[in-house]
Formats: sequence, structure tokens, C-alpha cells
Amino acid sequence: MITKIDHLGIAVRDWETAVARYTTLTAGPPQHIEEVPEQKVKVAMFEVGEARIELLSATAPDSPIAKFLEKRGEGMHHICFQVPNLEEALQRLQADGMEILPGAGSAGAQGRRVAFLHPKSAAGVLIELVEKL
Amino acid sequence: MITKIDHLGIAVRDWETAVARYTTLTAGPPQHIEEVPEQKVKVAMFEVGEARIELLSATAPDSPIAKFLEKRGEGMHHICFQVPNLEEALQRLQADGMEILPGAGSAGAQGRRVAFLHPKSAAGVLIELVEKL
Repeated sequence: MITKIDHLGIAVRDWETAVARYTTLTAGPPQHIEEVPEQKVKVAMFEVGEARIELLSATAPDSPIAKFLEKRGEGMHHICFQVPNLEEALQRLQADGMEILPGAGSAGAQGRRVAFLHPKSAAGVLIELVEKL
Repeated sequence: MITKIDHLGIAVRDWETAVARYTTLTAGPPQHIEEVPEQKVKVAMFEVGEARIELLSATAPDSPIAKFLEKRGEGMHHICFQVPNLEEALQRLQADGMEILPGAGSAGAQGRRVAFLHPKSAAGVLIELVEKL
């Protein structure tokens, strides 16, 4: 069903420090920086093998990331897996009793179609699925 | 410096349910199940592309995973990156002001040499480094 880890989302409060830390870890600057106005976030992407690290910073106080930071502090926000076909994956997961969050099929970073699973369906982890381009 | 995500560690309370969920997600049973007595954990490994998902369950009340579950509940515990040479990576990271946790160089799951970085050095994320075999 899932073919690889697409990226790991990390919620950050201190953007400059976080970008510097992951630049050191991945031995290079972010390959891509983007604002996603619909989600009120700024993202920086660092390549790591076949996957990426996505730093997420809130661009408004009512951003989902701002709320996450308030509740949990900086740290892992979600795991994104790549699937060949989003509808097929969601149908199979629902058939196995996993809960899909509202808004499935909408556009995420870089305009790709995504869906999120409820953390209670995956041992407390927020899982994003993204369709392969 | 880091070449790929080696695995993602997820702390689980309900072992049976978590194994069933990740079996559905990865479309197959765990490739590997192991107890690591030194860390008082049981682990299940699921392959996902070039990386793996590691479910972590406590085998004793004083296990670090038991303490994590008490404080944070189920969810993401750490990200493990692969490095070609552990000593070299640790030296570079320390030179850049990142804090290495005590016990660096000891054996983790499957007997490989590992080290952990303090979460405050990486935007709240506990990072494990493992040397390539």
C-alpha cells in the first residue's frame, strides 16, 4: 500500500535555529522553501535519501501548527507516506477500520493531493498520505 | 552527513493493535521482532521503502518507553538517521553546538552502534544516529 516515507513533518517555533540545525544534520541548506496560505504555514524541505524533512512554522496565530506548538511544543508533527493511488489506499484503510480526517483529497505542499488519518488509528501518530505525482 | 532515514521509532501501549495497524498500512507483517533487554523494550520492524517503522513497547515499568508513554502517551518517539561513520558525525555535530546524550557508541537494536542527540538540539525531536553496517 505505502511505497516509501515521503517526508517527516516537524513543528518548529524558532525557524532560524531549526533551519540551521537541520542544515548541519543534512549537510546542506533546504532544497525548497514555501508558504502554504491555506494551511497558514511556512515549510522548509531538506532531502534525506529518498525522503525529506519538512520543518513547519506557523504564519498566523490560528494556524494548526500554532495550536500544535501551544499544546505539545516543538517536535514531530506527522509522518507522510507516499501511495500510488490515494482513493484506493483510503478505501482499504477505511475497510480495516481506520479513520480518515475530513478534507481528504485536498492539495498540500507543492500542490499534491493528500489525506490525513486520525492519530488514534495509528498508535498516536498523525499520518499523512500523499499521492505519487 | 546523514545518508537516509534508517527508521522511525513509535512508542506503543497496545502492542497487538499497533502491530495490526502498521501491518495494514505497510501491507505486510513485521519483518523482524526482537527484545532488547538492555533497553527493556520489545520492537517490531516494518519495511517502508529504504527505511523502517519501529514499534516500541515497554517490557518493564522502569523502561524508558514506559516513562515516555506515561508522560506523552502513544506516538512518535524518535527519528533514526544512518551515518557512514558515527565518531565523525558526532564530532561534527558537537562542533556545531549540538548536544550528544550519554552512552553514545553503545549497541542498539540488531547490535548496531548508535548515539542519541538531545531533543533541544533538533527542534524538540529525539534523534538517533546509527552507523551503517
